[in-house]
Amino acid sequence: MKTIFTFTPPAELIQDLTECFPSEDFSFYPDIQHAEKELSNAEVLVTYGEDLTETHIQLADQLKWIMVTSAGLEKMPLQAIKEKGILVTNARGIHKIPMAEFTLGLMLQYAKQFPVMQKQQKEHVWKKGLPIFELSGQTILIVGAGAIGSEIARLAKAFGMKTIGVNSSGEKRDYFDEMQTLDSMYEGLGASDFIVNILPSTSETKHFYQKHHFKSMKNTAVFINIGRGDAVKTKVLMEVLQEKMISHAILDVLEEEPLPEEHPIWSMDNVTITPHISSNTNLYLPRVFEILKHNYRTYTNKQEDFLNVIDVEKGY
Amino acid sequence: MKTIFTFTPPAELIQDLTECFPSEDFSFYPDIQHAEKELSNAEVLVTYGEDLTETHIQLADQLKWIMVTSAGLEKMPLQAIKEKGILVTNARGIHKIPMAEFTLGLMLQYAKQFPVMQKQQKEHVWKKGLPIFELSGQTILIVGAGAIGSEIARLAKAFGMKTIGVNSSGEKRDYFDEMQTLDSMYEGLGASDFIVNILPSTSETKHFYQKHHFKSMKNTAVFINIGRGDAVKTKVLMEVLQEKMISHAILDVLEEEPLPEEHPIWSMDNVTITPHISSNTNLYLPRVFEILKHNYRTYTNKQEDFLNVIDVEKGY
Repeated sequence: MKTIFTFTPPAELIQDLTECFPSEDFSFYPDIQHAEKELSNAEVLVTYGEDLTETHIQLADQLKWIMVTSAGLEKMPLQAIKEKGILVTNARGIHKIPMAEFTLGLMLQYAKQFPVMQKQQKEHVWKKGLPIFELSGQTILIVGAGAIGSEIARLAKAFGMKTIGVNSSGEKRDYFDEMQTLDSMYEGLGASDFIVNILPSTSETKHFYQKHHFKSMKNTAVFINIGRGDAVKTKVLMEVLQEKMISHAILDVLEEEPLPEEHPIWSMDNVTITPHISSNTNLYLPRVFEILKHNYRTYTNKQEDFLNVIDVEKGY
Repeated sequence: MKTIFTFTPPAELIQDLTECFPSEDFSFYPDIQHAEKELSNAEVLVTYGEDLTETHIQLADQLKWIMVTSAGLEKMPLQAIKEKGILVTNARGIHKIPMAEFTLGLMLQYAKQFPVMQKQQKEHVWKKGLPIFELSGQTILIVGAGAIGSEIARLAKAFGMKTIGVNSSGEKRDYFDEMQTLDSMYEGLGASDFIVNILPSTSETKHFYQKHHFKSMKNTAVFINIGRGDAVKTKVLMEVLQEKMISHAILDVLEEEPLPEEHPIWSMDNVTITPHISSNTNLYLPRVFEILKHNYRTYTNKQEDFLNVIDVEKGY
C-alpha cells in the first residue's frame, strides 16, 4: 500500500512511523508538484490541506484516504473528493492548547507594554511609568465558543476575567460566564475589553464583521483574529483603526496570506501582525502523527474507529 | 495633623483622599528634597520607600507613622526609625496579581517568539516556521514560594505546567506539585524549564545565585528575576549567558538600578530587560490608597487594626 506525503516531516517522526508500520511503503515529497508523478499509485495521501486541486484528485485514481494535517478544509476540492468516495480525516482537536496559549500571550503582550520595553532595551533606556494594565477584572468576548474558544475562556477565567461566549445557538459552554448568539452579541461587543474571533470560514462567516460591529466596541477595545482571515475585510479593519473606533487589532490571519510586503497595514502602529502561526508549536506534528498512526492502524486492520472523519458534504 | 507625601499621586486619588478626610492637612511634594523644609511638622509620611535617610528621620521630630507604598524596605533607615518608635506600614499583598500576570506574560513572550514576529512585522516579512513551544507540559521552579510565588504557580498550573516551589522550610504551599528548600533545590534547578526568582532581599539572599546554580540548570532553561536585583551579581549572570549555561535571562530587577546606559548587558541577545516594573499597573496606586485610607482611619480614631504593620526589628 503506497502512502504519499506532500511535505517532509522531521526525521524522527518518519523513523517512528516506519518502525510502527515496517511493511508499508511511505514516500515523502517536499510539495505536491514533486509528488505528482507518483499520485496515480497512491492509496493514502497526507497533506497540510492547501495544495490539492481537482486535477490531483483525478490523477490519483487509486486514492482511498486523505489525511489532512490541519483543521480547516476550505481549500480542498471537496466536490471531486465526494464523487470518488474518498475518506477524509483531519487534525482537529489538537489546536486548542497552542492557540489558547498564543492568544493569552498576545493579550499579555499588549496589556504589559512589552514591545515598548523591547524598544527601550534596544535604546538602553530605563524608563518606568508605562501604562500597564491587568487582565484581571477585564472582559473577553470569544466569538466562536467551540473547543478552542472554551480553552481560551478557561485560561481567561484563571486570570480573573469575565468571559462571554458567542455561538450560533447561545447554548452554554464550559468556562463562559455568559453566552450570546451572533445576532445578539452587540451587548457583549460593547462590554468587552478583548474581542477574539475564532469563527471558522463558512459562507455565513465570510466578511462577517462590518463597521457597525466595531462601532459597538469600546474605543479602548482590542480585536484579535486567530480564526479565519476572511471574517473581516482588511480594508474595513484599516478604516476602523484609522478612525480609532478601537485601540488595537492583533491579526494572526488576514484576507490575503502571505500578506504582501507592500501592504500598508504592516506599518500601522495600532496593529500587531503574526504570520498565521497561532497553532504552531514543537508539539504540533508529533500530535498529528499520533492521530495518523491511530487511523493508519484502523485503516490497515479494516476497522471503523477512525479519528476525525470529515463529512465531505458539510466540509467539517 | 500634618501628612506629607514625597511623591505626587494622580489628581483623582488626591481628591478622593481629601474628601474622605476633609479636616486633615495633606501636602504633596514631587520628592523628598522638596519636602525637607516641612519634615519637622510632619506627623505622617507617605513614601515609595527608597528616599528616606537617617538625617530625614532626625529632622522629622514629630513623625509618628511612615506609610511605605511598596513592599521592600531594605533601603529604609530602620535603626533610626526603631530608636524613635515610629510606626511603619507598607503595601504588601497587592503585588501578586500584577507580578504573576507579568511573569506569565514574559514566559509566553519567550515561548511564542513574539519579539521575532515584531521584527518581521517591522520588515514586512511573513515568515512561518518559528521555533515556538508550549508552556503546557513544562516545569517551573519558583524560588520564594510566598503569596506572589503561589499566584505565579496557580497560573502556571492553569497552563498545564508542573510547579516546584522553594522556601526556607520546604513546607507545602498551594498550587505547588513539589516543594524544596534553598539547600536541596539542585534537583529542581536541573528539572526546570523556567526558574523564577522572587526571593526578598535579606543578608542571606544577597548574591545567592552562584555559577554552580546555573551549571545545574538545563542549557535550554530561562532564568527570570522579578525579586531583588542583588540576588545575583550581574557579572555572574553575564558570564553564565556568554558561556550559554542557560538559554535566556529575563531581568526585571538588577544589581544596579536604573541600569546605566553604557552597561553591556543591555545589548546581549539572550537577555530581556524590563525596568523594575512587574508590579506596576493602573490599579497599583488605587490599591495602595485603599490600604492608606484604612490605616488613616485607624490612626485618626486611635484604633489598633492597622494593615501591614512592619516589625522594624526584622525588617518585614
